[in-house]
Amino acid sequence: METLRIALLGAGTVGSGFVKLLDENRSRFRVLGLEPALTGILVRDPGKPRPAWVPRGLLTNDAERVLGEADVVVELMGGTQRAGRLVLDALDRGLPVITANKALLAERWGELKPHALEGLLFYEASVMAGTPVIEPLSGSLRGNRTLELHGILNGSTNYIIGRMEEGLCFAEALEEAQAKGFVEEDPFLDIGGIDAAHKLAVLARLTVDPDFPWEKVRASTRGIQELKRDHVYEAEAAGKKIRLVASLYPENGEWRAAVRPVLLPAGHPLARAALSRNALLYRGDAVGEVFISGGGAGSAVTASAVIGDMLRMLEGYPGHPPLPEAATPPNYQPENLEEATP
Amino acid sequence: METLRIALLGAGTVGSGFVKLLDENRSRFRVLGLEPALTGILVRDPGKPRPAWVPRGLLTNDAERVLGEADVVVELMGGTQRAGRLVLDALDRGLPVITANKALLAERWGELKPHALEGLLFYEASVMAGTPVIEPLSGSLRGNRTLELHGILNGSTNYIIGRMEEGLCFAEALEEAQAKGFVEEDPFLDIGGIDAAHKLAVLARLTVDPDFPWEKVRASTRGIQELKRDHVYEAEAAGKKIRLVASLYPENGEWRAAVRPVLLPAGHPLARAALSRNALLYRGDAVGEVFISGGGAGSAVTASAVIGDMLRMLEGYPGHPPLPEAATPPNYQPENLEEATP
Repeated sequence: METLRIALLGAGTVGSGFVKLLDENRSRFRVLGLEPALTGILVRDPGKPRPAWVPRGLLTNDAERVLGEADVVVELMGGTQRAGRLVLDALDRGLPVITANKALLAERWGELKPHALEGLLFYEASVMAGTPVIEPLSGSLRGNRTLELHGILNGSTNYIIGRMEEGLCFAEALEEAQAKGFVEEDPFLDIGGIDAAHKLAVLARLTVDPDFPWEKVRASTRGIQELKRDHVYEAEAAGKKIRLVASLYPENGEWRAAVRPVLLPAGHPLARAALSRNALLYRGDAVGEVFISGGGAGSAVTASAVIGDMLRMLEGYPGHPPLPEAATPPNYQPENLEEATP
Repeated sequence: METLRIALLGAGTVGSGFVKLLDENRSRFRVLGLEPALTGILVRDPGKPRPAWVPRGLLTNDAERVLGEADVVVELMGGTQRAGRLVLDALDRGLPVITANKALLAERWGELKPHALEGLLFYEASVMAGTPVIEPLSGSLRGNRTLELHGILNGSTNYIIGRMEEGLCFAEALEEAQAKGFVEEDPFLDIGGIDAAHKLAVLARLTVDPDFPWEKVRASTRGIQELKRDHVYEAEAAGKKIRLVASLYPENGEWRAAVRPVLLPAGHPLARAALSRNALLYRGDAVGEVFISGGGAGSAVTASAVIGDMLRMLEGYPGHPPLPEAATPPNYQPENLEEATP
């Protein structure tokens, strides 16, 4: 039995979840003749309290010690600066990287893309966590010309809106979501729509343009900071639900990628995604409409996608299929989603 | 540019759709340095009228002529006997096979499995057509222990039930579905639940037991032949919907795979799958609940999955990941779906 040496970057909620799930999935690796072993866990503060199953002896803030002996790198620390340096360093060494870091993918794609095309970058966990989205969009759905897609890609804002439907004001709902660990350290990433925009940029590159610019998504992003309980009630009185929706669709011969609160009919599939659940509605010219929903965050939910990616990597699946050529936007009337005012 | 020589077996609805979609996807192959070309199209009767885009000069009933010069075989003829001989012949020659044939996969898995484990067998199109199901279950969801799954896997019975909800009697609804080409040549495959059972057997092998026996699924299969309009109305009066559901779940320490009409609360995700749409509800211990719905049959819908598989094959993805070890059924209380009487 050969050892698979794994460098783990980050031991927060998802990183700790990965350590646990890796242990539970040992038999999956043994089928492949491999015994997984962590070479080290890179953290800012090795002294900070962590779950009991995280091996204390492996915690370190010495990046070289962690990366130097690894066969594969799992990046679950988040952020674009330090994580970006470490991920690019690992890729430069020819190490495959599995990451859940949508901010990094969205904002530094130009640097990552050449490594992705070498098959070294795996990132199913970056959009909708363990709910399969990256894999089908870059796999079995590729016989389609993409017409449009619409998603609820951020669980915390959906949770906040859901709790406002149940009577809380924005501040109360935000506080509750924070207490439950649903919100990023910088809450603006969630409530400002940035996290959803990061994920939309990732999806746009897999479906319609391999170089879809982050700035173009960022410029069409509006969050729910101004959302008041009255807006939610008025929507409900009109038989509608407010949702923060990320959309990619053709408009005047161009691809438009926008994140904004919209008013959905209560029976709309995206409206039914409740609280922290995520959902994606994809329309392709051959397959028609495909709808995928599930958890979009959380420790085990996200870590399960990392395990899936790691198995795929070990089985010789390339980390990244060849990217599509930039697709001319089809002459197609996309679904008209009504923007909410707040 | 190298030529990719494709042998097509069958030119019915899906086969013809594949010919068309292959042509529309040429640029996807050219990115890989390949020009796809059909070596021949095996049919029973080359003289039968077919859509204009199917090249008449390639139609033949000479199997050797078609298989002899191929790099890859696409089997879209259906059935277990002739298709089985041809597929096994191709696999014995070391040719990769892409198939939508769930009957063959379900009933002759013992013969196919060794070839699948060599990475030669691709079959995304066999369950829920182009809606991604095989790929996520054998890919990114593998970090999970499967708890249960429930699916509407047969579009024609769902269409028949939907039309009965709209007032038709069983015979009228069946006739309409047949006129629309939704029903297999032998309607019992659909209305007797056999087609759904075939697909359930395929899913069971990917998730809980690589040798799940077809006979065990067959023995727990009941169709909708006895369904009367009154049953549908009585269900509706009680706020429920009748659906033919295929389920895999633990029961008394064993895996049970059953297909039968059930009464679902009208708000249940599976109840919302209308007419010919298919849907799958998967529950895993790490990811929680994942729901996938979309078209489950039809020419382009099915052919799109064949194109996806072919691209994956060309990119070096193995046709089949290592199968899981047989999983001990978890100590877990599955969702209680109420069986409908008819």
